[in-house]
Amino acid sequence: MPVTRFLLSANDLPTTWYNVVPDLPKGLPPMLHPGTRQPVTPADLAPLFPQALIDQEFSTDRDIDIPGAVLDVYRQWRPSPLVRAHRLEQALKTPARIYFKYEGVSPAGSHKPNTAVPQAYYNKREGVAKLTTETGAGQWGSSLSLACSYFGLDCEVYMVRVSYDQKPYRRALMETFGASVTASPSTLTEAGRAALAADPDSTGSLGLAISEAVEAALASGGTAKYALGSVLNLVLMHQTVIGQEALRQLELADDYPDVVIGAAGGGSNFAGLALPFWRRQHDGSGPAVRLIAVEPASCPSLTEGTYEYDFGDTAGMTPLTKMHTLGHDFVPPSIHAGGLRYHGMAPIVSALKDTEALEARAVPQRACFSAGVQFARAEGIVPAPESTHAVRVAIDEALACRESGESKAIVFSLSGHGHFDMQAYVDYFAGRLTD
Amino acid sequence: MPVTRFLLSANDLPTTWYNVVPDLPKGLPPMLHPGTRQPVTPADLAPLFPQALIDQEFSTDRDIDIPGAVLDVYRQWRPSPLVRAHRLEQALKTPARIYFKYEGVSPAGSHKPNTAVPQAYYNKREGVAKLTTETGAGQWGSSLSLACSYFGLDCEVYMVRVSYDQKPYRRALMETFGASVTASPSTLTEAGRAALAADPDSTGSLGLAISEAVEAALASGGTAKYALGSVLNLVLMHQTVIGQEALRQLELADDYPDVVIGAAGGGSNFAGLALPFWRRQHDGSGPAVRLIAVEPASCPSLTEGTYEYDFGDTAGMTPLTKMHTLGHDFVPPSIHAGGLRYHGMAPIVSALKDTEALEARAVPQRACFSAGVQFARAEGIVPAPESTHAVRVAIDEALACRESGESKAIVFSLSGHGHFDMQAYVDYFAGRLTD
Repeated sequence: MPVTRFLLSANDLPTTWYNVVPDLPKGLPPMLHPGTRQPVTPADLAPLFPQALIDQEFSTDRDIDIPGAVLDVYRQWRPSPLVRAHRLEQALKTPARIYFKYEGVSPAGSHKPNTAVPQAYYNKREGVAKLTTETGAGQWGSSLSLACSYFGLDCEVYMVRVSYDQKPYRRALMETFGASVTASPSTLTEAGRAALAADPDSTGSLGLAISEAVEAALASGGTAKYALGSVLNLVLMHQTVIGQEALRQLELADDYPDVVIGAAGGGSNFAGLALPFWRRQHDGSGPAVRLIAVEPASCPSLTEGTYEYDFGDTAGMTPLTKMHTLGHDFVPPSIHAGGLRYHGMAPIVSALKDTEALEARAVPQRACFSAGVQFARAEGIVPAPESTHAVRVAIDEALACRESGESKAIVFSLSGHGHFDMQAYVDYFAGRLTD
Repeated sequence: MPVTRFLLSANDLPTTWYNVVPDLPKGLPPMLHPGTRQPVTPADLAPLFPQALIDQEFSTDRDIDIPGAVLDVYRQWRPSPLVRAHRLEQALKTPARIYFKYEGVSPAGSHKPNTAVPQAYYNKREGVAKLTTETGAGQWGSSLSLACSYFGLDCEVYMVRVSYDQKPYRRALMETFGASVTASPSTLTEAGRAALAADPDSTGSLGLAISEAVEAALASGGTAKYALGSVLNLVLMHQTVIGQEALRQLELADDYPDVVIGAAGGGSNFAGLALPFWRRQHDGSGPAVRLIAVEPASCPSLTEGTYEYDFGDTAGMTPLTKMHTLGHDFVPPSIHAGGLRYHGMAPIVSALKDTEALEARAVPQRACFSAGVQFARAEGIVPAPESTHAVRVAIDEALACRESGESKAIVFSLSGHGHFDMQAYVDYFAGRLTD
């Protein structure tokens, strides 16, 4: 069997992130202040984020240097492998060439450290002692805990109560990395106390956990700041190391994709893989590629949402951004791909969808796990529930090639492994999942 | 910070396994038949194992070719990384140079697929349709399930009842790879039915699960064979890809170890790393290296056992081998490093200990988890409970260097990650562990 893994050396790591904002055909509509509805200024964000990250969020530079200290950490697991899925191709009897970019090799098991590490670094450099954040499924909380451990920052994670109780192992992972993990709603914040007063048995929500983490940072008198793991321009930018590496690895494979696929919750994993390919077709240095963002049928912001200004959180405390949204009061059903349960979509991904630069597809949960199991049996890796969405559409595209006889190259993002999500597979095998 | 990971390309994979048997100073005492007490012949093993594996078990060739189909699977994750633990060194303020060979990159999360894959391959080649095996902690069962999935074999795993109930996620992993998992004692075998008749609430034991798996293979009329994940000569031989890769990676690092460390339950992980280094000092092509096998203080076969003939299982059904043993009726206390709870030690490791070619050290459980957490905070990887034993001694050696001012090179085996063992960390943080 020919070479399966396309590996780069640590010296081949990208040294810049790609900021797509200056290349967007219609630009990016500004964030609006939730009170004044006027465009948010950098100063408005200063209580929450360090200056370097605010600069990145508003930057119109295309290429932004990755600091050496961040590269040193990336090198612990990056460049991540690009794998030709020969065994999956054989199982599918498809003439398609299937590649996956595997982000589960990070110590936290997903792509999230790509942004957690620089966020921790810039905060540390500006003298911040502690980061606060929220986590639902736990991937982001684990990743920020890891990053804070690397840079010697304290980390305080507000974990949605229902996850806190149901996912003790995710919590243990964060504690192993040295973070303190608090069930939300908690008695540590006004937002938490108010929620508990209204309902002492509240199981929490991501929106409420965000409110608690933000309040805790604001109440610290400047020693603590807040970190967010998706949606922001800077987060999508940090994730572009994925696609930049994939481009170089495909050169090693002497191939170029016809289709690029990623799961999209907030949109950062999809964008991290897709944007560097989009850049090539945009600047004329590469051919056109179909970019497919895959979302759960139960939370279809791109395929069924409207493109309008909406709040990022449930309570309406965050800035308004123009995005594809199901409405900030939309409550997605409980599915196992917790990382995809978000009412909105990153403004950058939404803007690209608006200009028809990308396709969106919504897939039901059981079909995703079916694809995940098929993938695991062929390639040996158990995908995270979020990642099974990309696997599903990659398999569907490969099966379409079998029908048509076309030999397309399909590249998808395997954003993480499912080691901390095995309950989902238990439920799938037991026939307990619904779509 | 200088280069941290020393990576080899797929082309640098070893193409032979190293069989230490012909190099052992006093040779290896023969296995004895449990009934006749006469040396076991290859024919005695034919009902259980395919001929190619029996040949390997009795082989006196030093270098045995790795089949191309096995190399094709190894290449899915091998060569595994050798990592310079710069951050751990800094945290310890030690002049020592610490390297770890990371086997947790395999899809099953440990070194066990190194032998599961060739075992599945040789069985498939000889027309076997199904493999049976036992599993306690679950690493071996996961690895054989994976290997059977790659080669299209059925896999039947007898999982010790207490693990079956307490570790549903390990079970789900095996099922994701397509294996059938049965709680042992089961009603599928005479051994299981007898155990249940004696105690309907039996939580099982590894010895009983072995009996069930062996019986199921023997009862199959030749369509099924049995697979064992440690102790055998052939298993240790398959694991030598670890040490062979490490030797090449240390050349890239322009370094050579003073000390090589591995955790030892049955002994295959330790031997897989250590034997290729031992070979170099034995044939004069390399300097002397201290080899340290680390075992739990609660199950100290090498440090406190006697070197004598004993059974491999509790019931006395397996051949007798000369080994360091605590007695086949020794019941190790329940510790989280389930893979190290074995009353004996591989005959090869025992023979080397007998000739003082290696050191043994026993360490208590809590000190191991303390080391595991320190390692995770520095290097980002959460070690399996078994692996924390090697981490503990590596840290102790590095701290001794801080005292003495010596700058030794320390290489240890990080045999697997702890993603499926987080309950152990939960218990550690809660202060519920005993030594």
